[in-house]
Amino acid sequence: MLLSQNEETIVALATPGGIGAISVIRVSGPESFRAIDNIFSGKQKLVNSTTHTIHYGKIYSVDKELVDDVLISIFRSPNSYTGEDSVEISTHGSPYIVQRIIEIILSQNVRLADPGEFTRRAFLNGRIDLAQAEAVADVINSNTEASLRGARNQLDGLLSQKVDSLREKLINTSSLIELELDFSEEDLEFLSYEEVEKRIKEIIQELDFLISSYSFGRVLKDGVNVALVGEPNVGKSSLLNYLLKEARAIVSEIPGTTRDIIREELVIDGILFRLYDTAGLRFTEDLIEKEGVFRSKEAVRNADLVLFMNDVISGFSENLWIELKSITDPERILKVVNKIDLRNPQKDLFDVGISAKTGEGIELLFQALKTKALGTKTYSEKSAVVSNIRHFNALENAKENLTTALSSINQKLSGEFVSVDLRNAESALGEIIGKVTSEDILNNIFSKFCIGK
Amino acid sequence: MLLSQNEETIVALATPGGIGAISVIRVSGPESFRAIDNIFSGKQKLVNSTTHTIHYGKIYSVDKELVDDVLISIFRSPNSYTGEDSVEISTHGSPYIVQRIIEIILSQNVRLADPGEFTRRAFLNGRIDLAQAEAVADVINSNTEASLRGARNQLDGLLSQKVDSLREKLINTSSLIELELDFSEEDLEFLSYEEVEKRIKEIIQELDFLISSYSFGRVLKDGVNVALVGEPNVGKSSLLNYLLKEARAIVSEIPGTTRDIIREELVIDGILFRLYDTAGLRFTEDLIEKEGVFRSKEAVRNADLVLFMNDVISGFSENLWIELKSITDPERILKVVNKIDLRNPQKDLFDVGISAKTGEGIELLFQALKTKALGTKTYSEKSAVVSNIRHFNALENAKENLTTALSSINQKLSGEFVSVDLRNAESALGEIIGKVTSEDILNNIFSKFCIGK
Repeated sequence: MLLSQNEETIVALATPGGIGAISVIRVSGPESFRAIDNIFSGKQKLVNSTTHTIHYGKIYSVDKELVDDVLISIFRSPNSYTGEDSVEISTHGSPYIVQRIIEIILSQNVRLADPGEFTRRAFLNGRIDLAQAEAVADVINSNTEASLRGARNQLDGLLSQKVDSLREKLINTSSLIELELDFSEEDLEFLSYEEVEKRIKEIIQELDFLISSYSFGRVLKDGVNVALVGEPNVGKSSLLNYLLKEARAIVSEIPGTTRDIIREELVIDGILFRLYDTAGLRFTEDLIEKEGVFRSKEAVRNADLVLFMNDVISGFSENLWIELKSITDPERILKVVNKIDLRNPQKDLFDVGISAKTGEGIELLFQALKTKALGTKTYSEKSAVVSNIRHFNALENAKENLTTALSSINQKLSGEFVSVDLRNAESALGEIIGKVTSEDILNNIFSKFCIGK
Repeated sequence: MLLSQNEETIVALATPGGIGAISVIRVSGPESFRAIDNIFSGKQKLVNSTTHTIHYGKIYSVDKELVDDVLISIFRSPNSYTGEDSVEISTHGSPYIVQRIIEIILSQNVRLADPGEFTRRAFLNGRIDLAQAEAVADVINSNTEASLRGARNQLDGLLSQKVDSLREKLINTSSLIELELDFSEEDLEFLSYEEVEKRIKEIIQELDFLISSYSFGRVLKDGVNVALVGEPNVGKSSLLNYLLKEARAIVSEIPGTTRDIIREELVIDGILFRLYDTAGLRFTEDLIEKEGVFRSKEAVRNADLVLFMNDVISGFSENLWIELKSITDPERILKVVNKIDLRNPQKDLFDVGISAKTGEGIELLFQALKTKALGTKTYSEKSAVVSNIRHFNALENAKENLTTALSSINQKLSGEFVSVDLRNAESALGEIIGKVTSEDILNNIFSKFCIGK
């Protein structure tokens, strides 16, 4: 039974750690009001307070020492984030005060929340489905317009609604098949094999659309890693410097990110591009810095795109092209020629011509990067888009089962076989929104959340 | 006119920066509700909402794109932190979302708050006095029980009340003197010179108590810097290792603190002690590492206390003692002898004997450190204590003026002289609580706050 933990009341810091004007401590569970009333002195008892009201008062330690004056927000079940009785305590933003208050709350038969436990409870209490719960983490981690929009759409239920409607269609179809089996002796036909086949094909088509959206959704969510490769002196540094000055938005350093060979992050039409400079790399034998070569090759292998830079003077570098093709898919390589201010390039050899000096062609380069990253398929702002590998796998699994069902139909196998495949497909889709789930899946999802969410 | 800025509405992030479950954006000023209503869609307009209520809804960009779903807390003037109409917006804890929402709010004729501006407005609107406003920063920066208690007492007005009562006494006395001057032709005596002298002396006595509390208050607030000095192999590292394992509370690393030669922070009875290890330092000529010696000497000079460590084997190091006395006040040096598990020390040479190996005497060392740091004067938990150099200077200034007044009285000078001195003293005290202030003083105080407070 998944709900067992919900009888416990939990506490955690909800705001980022560190010093600030205020910090917010979140408490949720059946004993929230009682626990805080024990240590809080305000105008009235919290247990008697109306939902969505704010109360000024003081928090005392168990030995009655004043710790801080605070504002307490009251959320009564079911009108809270978790669906349970909850309070939020707004304290002075001192890590020491936060620690003291959490310690005091822990003495009131309240325990520290696990990572993601507030959101997990929101899911278990039916406030949001599992795909929406996962979107909460994506919203928090969003760092561009595109990543936020994708996460917001998922949090708002766009993907869930799509998946649920496909599930409904499958349930409806398998139910009719099973009904027919129940009445098989009476030779009633609720649904022709042709009709079943048609329905399954329609669903597969919709699944294919979702599945193919994954590369797009992943780009929105995670951004695009671009390896910048080229012979010495073709102008890689000039391009980076130009971008540094001119790019429409430069994302500041993200704590914890290895900046070893990242040189630049830029946002093109809301999408994050991380440029990994492999400057100094030449894929030739005479290089002493093997470690550098190794790391540069890794950068190329891990990159979503390779910006392969040449210049009009030296022309297209065949050696580097052969080397590059041997370690990554040529489809991922964007062939760029620099210094077009000096001479006209051989157009048929390159995708884009630029001048890192004058800025000519940079806008075309941006659009080429974007097209290469997103593909040509277009998704409306309100499309259900898949950005989570778990969802992608579940969709693939559902499709596989439907493909098996189609082959059973072609082989004129009994409806029982078809029905089982449809049920399996439905169950795979149910995993996405959490209709079908397990403790393991939930642990895996929520352990990646921060504590306090 | 100090209040002029208050007509503007200001915004800032109030919670620490970074990723978390939630972040809180604070808006204050006359246009708070109108500005947020323009970009917020909830069940009802904020301008019509009751104070201290919470409202769920969505924030949209100026081009009507959904940015986040939020909870908005309403605080109506004068029942807010600043005393003005204020809202707090609780968003998903993504720096990108916070930045987006602040940008959107800035488009609504709202400007970014200066550092400390919310607290400055709380002061200007009479919600708190200046000493209390300064205590807000101390509360936020408190990192031990003692520093929090000191800051809380000041925020609760203990110092302000004390200062204000002394001010009242001065005003009362100078008024009577001035009244007498007004009626001098009629030869009325409202107050004898003896009585004035007595009153001034009483006030000086109270000022002295406050002034002398500064060394205590500073220790509570800022902690105690202890330089650990000793000849090689007397056991400095052993002591540090012992403390690392056994100390009652070790404070974790504070961002931005230079940890170059800090080895350990420990909390003794709620007071923070920072141990600066000068291991490797010998104050002898034959040392090559001049930089190390220089830095160690600096550490000794800057230390509040020097833990001068010897051992029972080598005995008291006369050379080091002479060197130490030449760079710091001998009163600040605690003479410790280690390895008392091996042999009895010569007790009369040392303040404390310890064994860093067995832990014997460590508790005595803690108490000796505490006594050396705090002095023997005791302050009750509810004493008004000075911990701010600005207050200390103002008290000194007030005392100086009163001393001049006493000398005027002794010289039988006219009451006018005495009265001017009393007025100056009163004005110095008024600076502490902000009865007398200037834009410069305020700028100086609040510029040290973080933005959002």
